[in-house]
Amino acid sequence: MKITANNPNRKSWLHVDENSDFPIQNIPFGVFLTRDDIITIGTRIGDYAIDLGALHQLGYFEGIPLTDDIFLQDTLNDFIADGRITWRLVRNRIADLFDENNETLKNDVSHRDDIIFKMDEIEMQLPVDIGDYTDFYSSKEHATNVGIMFRGKENALMPNWLHIPVGYHGRSSSIVVSGTPIHRPYGQTLPVGATEPVFGASQRIDMELETAFITTAANHLGESIPVDEAEEYIFGMVVFNDWSARDIQKWEYVPLGPFLGKSFASTISPWIVTMDALEPFRCESPKQEVKPLPYLQQKRSDNSYDIKLEAILETENGDRNLLSKSNFKYMYWTMAQQLAHQTVNGCNVRTGDMLGSGTISGPTKDSYGSMLELTWAGKNPITLKDGSTRVFFNDGDNVILHGYCKNDTIRIGFGECAGKIVHLKK
Amino acid sequence: MKITANNPNRKSWLHVDENSDFPIQNIPFGVFLTRDDIITIGTRIGDYAIDLGALHQLGYFEGIPLTDDIFLQDTLNDFIADGRITWRLVRNRIADLFDENNETLKNDVSHRDDIIFKMDEIEMQLPVDIGDYTDFYSSKEHATNVGIMFRGKENALMPNWLHIPVGYHGRSSSIVVSGTPIHRPYGQTLPVGATEPVFGASQRIDMELETAFITTAANHLGESIPVDEAEEYIFGMVVFNDWSARDIQKWEYVPLGPFLGKSFASTISPWIVTMDALEPFRCESPKQEVKPLPYLQQKRSDNSYDIKLEAILETENGDRNLLSKSNFKYMYWTMAQQLAHQTVNGCNVRTGDMLGSGTISGPTKDSYGSMLELTWAGKNPITLKDGSTRVFFNDGDNVILHGYCKNDTIRIGFGECAGKIVHLKK
Repeated sequence: MKITANNPNRKSWLHVDENSDFPIQNIPFGVFLTRDDIITIGTRIGDYAIDLGALHQLGYFEGIPLTDDIFLQDTLNDFIADGRITWRLVRNRIADLFDENNETLKNDVSHRDDIIFKMDEIEMQLPVDIGDYTDFYSSKEHATNVGIMFRGKENALMPNWLHIPVGYHGRSSSIVVSGTPIHRPYGQTLPVGATEPVFGASQRIDMELETAFITTAANHLGESIPVDEAEEYIFGMVVFNDWSARDIQKWEYVPLGPFLGKSFASTISPWIVTMDALEPFRCESPKQEVKPLPYLQQKRSDNSYDIKLEAILETENGDRNLLSKSNFKYMYWTMAQQLAHQTVNGCNVRTGDMLGSGTISGPTKDSYGSMLELTWAGKNPITLKDGSTRVFFNDGDNVILHGYCKNDTIRIGFGECAGKIVHLKK
Repeated sequence: MKITANNPNRKSWLHVDENSDFPIQNIPFGVFLTRDDIITIGTRIGDYAIDLGALHQLGYFEGIPLTDDIFLQDTLNDFIADGRITWRLVRNRIADLFDENNETLKNDVSHRDDIIFKMDEIEMQLPVDIGDYTDFYSSKEHATNVGIMFRGKENALMPNWLHIPVGYHGRSSSIVVSGTPIHRPYGQTLPVGATEPVFGASQRIDMELETAFITTAANHLGESIPVDEAEEYIFGMVVFNDWSARDIQKWEYVPLGPFLGKSFASTISPWIVTMDALEPFRCESPKQEVKPLPYLQQKRSDNSYDIKLEAILETENGDRNLLSKSNFKYMYWTMAQQLAHQTVNGCNVRTGDMLGSGTISGPTKDSYGSMLELTWAGKNPITLKDGSTRVFFNDGDNVILHGYCKNDTIRIGFGECAGKIVHLKK
C-alpha cells in the first residue's frame, strides 16, 4: 500500500512554521490530556494537536477497520497491535483530511473546535505502556570512548562487541515523558581511594543521547524473528535520554550490569514518529568490519536513517548551550539487527516493548552523546555561556535532546526530549 | 487485624492429604482456566481449586470491600493493588468458609458444584501481569562459588557484594507458569580456545533454584521505601527457576550483564503464597559480616523465612533424581533490603513487579542451587538413577523445583515449579 501521507508536495490548511518538526508529512502518534481533562490519542500538525478520538467519533475514519474506542485510550498499545496496514491507512487518511485542497473538515467550524487544540492547551502523556525495555550499546564510537577511558586504548572494545549487538534489560517503570522532572538519585558510591562505600546524592548525573523504537507484537516465546523481517514489527521511534548516575553505576555494575545507576529515570520524547514517516531518510548503515553471523546479516545495505541529533543544556537563566551534535546513522548495529538478536534465543517481543540504541556518539569530539565522553571523564570541563562550567549536571539544569531529519523539501522531527534535574526529597 | 486464617488447629471439610502443600492454613492465590474455559482467580485447599469469582458472585465475601469483578480477571494485579488489609480479610473469610465446623457452604451442593474443581480439571495460568522483574544475587554461598570458579578463591566476592544487594533488570515477557515447555535457546557462544564465536543451540542449559516475591504499588517515582516498611509492600512469594544458558551468558555478559542467556524463559510456581501464610516460619536472617549502610539496616533480626527448597530432575523414563536441597534462610540479603535498595534511587515499584532472590545455595555441596555449582563447572558430572550423567540439562529433562515450610503442626508449600526442556524449532 502506498504511503500517500509522505507526499512531499502536500501542504496543510493548518499553519506550519518553516522549521517545524511537524509538517503534514510527519503525522506522529501520541497521547494527551485535553483542556477538558480528557485523555485521548492524537497527532500533531504544526503547533496544533489533533484529537483522533474525536475525529473517529465524528466518522472521519470511515472505511478503516478500527474499533470504536481505539483512540479513546490512555496508551497507543491497542492501536500499535493493529499492525502496519492500519497505521498506514490512518496516517494516509489524516494527511487527506488536513490537505489544503480538502474542504470537508477545513470548513466545518464546529468539528474543528472539537478536534483541534493548540499545543499549549494540552498536556502530553507517556504514549505507550512499555512492557519490556532493552537498552543496546550499539555505537562503536561510544563503546570505544568508554573503553579507552576505563581500560585503555588497546582493550577499548570488548571481544564480543563486533559480533553481538550488546544490550541489557532496563527498567520500564521509570520511563517518563519529556518534561517530567528528574530526581537526582541517592545511592552508594565508592569515593576515589576509599575501600568503603558512602551514601549520598549522586554527584555524576549524565545524559545519554539515544533513540528508541517501539514494537508491535513480533513473535511467540520460542520463535525468533529473521533479521530481514524485523522492520515489519517496528512501529516508530522516539528520542531517548537514558539518564545515568555514573558514580552509582561504577560501584554497582560488576558483574551483573547497570542497575540503580539507570533506573531512577529515563525520558522519551512524547510523539512516536512512524517508520513510514522516516522512510524518505533511509540511508546506508556503516559497513560492518567483521562479517556478522548469518542471523545478523541483512540483504539490503540501507538499514539506517539520517536523523540529526542534538543535546542542549538550558541553564536556569534561560541560556541554551549546545553540548553535542550527533546522528543516528553513526550506529554500527541496526534496529533490525537488534530486534533479530533480541529474539534469536526465542525471547518474545510484545506490543509496546521499547528497544533503545545506546548512546549515539559520532566520530568527532563535538558529536559525543554523553558528558562522560564530552568532558573525557572530567578532564575537560565544558564552559557555558554564563561562564560556569560543567563536568556532569547540576540541579536546575534542563537537558534537552532533539532529533530531526531534513532534506531539500521536508523536515520531520521528534520535538523535545527534555528533563530538568531536581533534588530528590528524602 | 488478626490473621485468623493461620490458626494451626483448624481443619477443612475438604480432604487434605497429610503431606499436601495446601492445608487450610495456606490459602494461596492463583489464576486458572476452568473446565468451561472460563478464566478466574482462585485458591487451593488440598487437591481442590476454589473459584473465588464464583464464591464472590454467590455473596460469600459480603462485608469485605471488593469490586464485583475483582476475581473475574486474568491476573491478580487488581486484587494485589487492594492492599494488605483486603488480602487478610479475604484469606480469613476463605478459612472460615472451608472450616470443618462451618456448615454453610459445606451443605450447599449446588454452590459447591459451582465453586470447587478438582485440580486435574483446571489449568493454571501465569498469576500476575509482571511489569518489571529484577533478579538479585543475594546468596553469599552462590556468589562465592561462582566467583571461585571464574576468578579464583582470593577474588571470589566482588568488592561491592557485602555492601549492596547486587541485582539486575530481567526480562518480564518470557516469565512463564510451571509446566510451560522450555525451548532450548539458540545463540552465539565462544568455543574454548576459539577467537570467533559460533552460532547454535546452547549446550549448557542450567537451572537457578530461586524464590521471588510479588509487590503491590510501593512508591512514586522519586520516593524511596524505608527498609523497615518494605515488608508492607510484599504480597507473597513463588518458587522461581531463572533458567540460564551458561555458554551464551559467558560470551555476552561483559560489560552490561546477562541478557539472552536468561531471557529465553523463567518459570514460576503458579500459586502465590502470601506473606501472612509464611509468617509462622519467620526466622533469623544471617548476621551480616559488614554492617550495611543505614538505609539497609533493619531493626528486627528475624527477617528471613525457613523455606525448604529442592531441585529434582525427572528424566523421560519417570525417574526423579534429587539434585539439591537448599533453604531460603541461607540468603544473606533479605527481601526488605532488596526492596529498599531497589527504590533508594527513587525508582518506582508497581503492583505486579517481581523481585527474584538469585540462586540460593547452601553451605554444603548437596545444597547448591545450580548445575554450574553442583558439577563444579562440569568437573564432577552427576550420575542419575538410570546410569546416565549430567553436567547441564538434556532435551526431555523435566526440572522440578519445590519449596515448603514445615513445623510440628503444619506444612505450607508452593507446589511445583517445573519446566521440561524441548528443542527450539528454527
